[in-house]
Amino acid sequence: MKKILNAPGAYVDEMLDGFVAAHPQYYARPEPRVILRADGASEGRVGIVTGGGSGHMPVFTGYVGRGFLTACAIGDVFASPSAEQMATAIRLSDGGAGVLRLYGNYGGDVMNFDMAGEMVEMEHDIATTTVLLADDIVSAPKEEADKRRGVAGMVYAFKIAGAAAEAMADLGEVTRVAQKAADACRSIGMALTPCIVPQAGKPTFELGPDEMEMGMGIHGEPGIWRDTLKPADAIVDEMVDRLLADQSLGRGDRVSVLVNSLGATPLEELYIMYRRVKQRLDGEGIDIVMPLVGRYATSMEMTGATITTLALDGELETLLQAPAECAYWRVG
Amino acid sequence: MKKILNAPGAYVDEMLDGFVAAHPQYYARPEPRVILRADGASEGRVGIVTGGGSGHMPVFTGYVGRGFLTACAIGDVFASPSAEQMATAIRLSDGGAGVLRLYGNYGGDVMNFDMAGEMVEMEHDIATTTVLLADDIVSAPKEEADKRRGVAGMVYAFKIAGAAAEAMADLGEVTRVAQKAADACRSIGMALTPCIVPQAGKPTFELGPDEMEMGMGIHGEPGIWRDTLKPADAIVDEMVDRLLADQSLGRGDRVSVLVNSLGATPLEELYIMYRRVKQRLDGEGIDIVMPLVGRYATSMEMTGATITTLALDGELETLLQAPAECAYWRVG
Repeated sequence: MKKILNAPGAYVDEMLDGFVAAHPQYYARPEPRVILRADGASEGRVGIVTGGGSGHMPVFTGYVGRGFLTACAIGDVFASPSAEQMATAIRLSDGGAGVLRLYGNYGGDVMNFDMAGEMVEMEHDIATTTVLLADDIVSAPKEEADKRRGVAGMVYAFKIAGAAAEAMADLGEVTRVAQKAADACRSIGMALTPCIVPQAGKPTFELGPDEMEMGMGIHGEPGIWRDTLKPADAIVDEMVDRLLADQSLGRGDRVSVLVNSLGATPLEELYIMYRRVKQRLDGEGIDIVMPLVGRYATSMEMTGATITTLALDGELETLLQAPAECAYWRVG
Repeated sequence: MKKILNAPGAYVDEMLDGFVAAHPQYYARPEPRVILRADGASEGRVGIVTGGGSGHMPVFTGYVGRGFLTACAIGDVFASPSAEQMATAIRLSDGGAGVLRLYGNYGGDVMNFDMAGEMVEMEHDIATTTVLLADDIVSAPKEEADKRRGVAGMVYAFKIAGAAAEAMADLGEVTRVAQKAADACRSIGMALTPCIVPQAGKPTFELGPDEMEMGMGIHGEPGIWRDTLKPADAIVDEMVDRLLADQSLGRGDRVSVLVNSLGATPLEELYIMYRRVKQRLDGEGIDIVMPLVGRYATSMEMTGATITTLALDGELETLLQAPAECAYWRVG
């Protein structure tokens, strides 16, 4: 297992030790598995809480910050945090205006976050709402969009909901724009090599030396096809075709685009991909606003990439461009 | 070859296509292999030019920007740019106050940058100076520090020299602080897996399935020892011990620290390493200022990491903290 770690069981906690030591201006750690904005909850400001398995840095906990999330509950690698950890994250985020639970659509997370919501409502009288992120178009057909999983597009929802909360919108309004951002996002991924979950000690799946898998999920969930590695433009063309088939976009529409590495794929190759994405969207007459190219949602050392489109209207574009700051993404 | 690309020969140019398309607010591309600050040279401001092989993003060209470099000449993967490309970068950076050539100590780059300097001095009457970056302590013994190679520490020199130029210091002064930053930097690396140069199509070296190499260079240059992969803390301890043996640091000293991924090593593992670096420097009574953890100087998809220390005095710390902005590093 070629990973730099001490004990597999200490991977997440030691990671968090270093994370808060490196960025104390952004992150506080009131509990071992809860990260909170360094300046904490604010009176009257809606809290936004996420949570999920580790191994996706900067997702999830990296996006805690001004104009982003208020807190994050942190599970083991690829495993849900507990309902108790989530309840703590919600409680610490509450400034009296309620808390939005904003997270990826995975069974364990949904079950635990639902329990956590009941706990804080009963015990602490905190109003909560939920928006599930489900941008992976390969994970279920369009007619069953509520079964889709959340992937890299969730960072757009964090940004947009965070901007509304920072502007002191109320819980209903923050929830509305978060749902609007979630609905406006589509993602698709492809993978070339797996990653290794520390406590398993072996790859999450196997791919032949010249194989790729189109549509693979961030935990190695099956995709659409597996075949010989294609040229970059052919890969991007298929990904863009599938995104455009799922989402009504046309001439004059404005989108943000995220070309995201799953970990090992270098910036050089993301730019080769982005070059083609831009050619294709230019060809459709679609305007790209604030493109993002880099590592925003990873699977540790997995090789591969995702492409996300976020369809913008004036409201979403204003919220996307509002000032915000965490250790990995700064706007304004 | 598990890389996302079209033709190996197009890797660098297509990468640059996407790079400038994604970040037009930061980067202009006046020639195919020259990246210039989007706002260009400025009357009376010292220009700072770097250059080197591709495959190390964000190094080199990513660090062009306000408070950073003025321009960069870009070679093929792991190959020097030509003297003509370098001369163009110098010429476009000149605002009448001269140009500092600030780059890594590699034979091909030195030869070509020397030629480029002669060309612009003869043909365009531009005064130039040179500071070579040579922070890799494993690449030559301390007594032959002028034979050492430049690695991740070069980003500190870009930042510090850029701050001086932005403050309208003259060429002598920008050169002096750049040299001071170069002298104050020490780096050491370790690798777990190689990367693939697109035009070669095969790994730059081989390491056994459980092996690591301490001290390996960013192009696979031989290190100090090769053995079974050690626990993270043991790896970091040896790296810190070697850095402290090379550089006189003690109680009350202030340093910046960069824990840098060579590409595939994920943020999670960099934080596990940073946690130990901080424990060790805390133990020595050395204060860490503005730690950096992430991918600042890579070798595409190589697995491994480098640790850099930058010893600070008041002047260097002020320049390090001065406002600056490129697509990968923003201060202030």
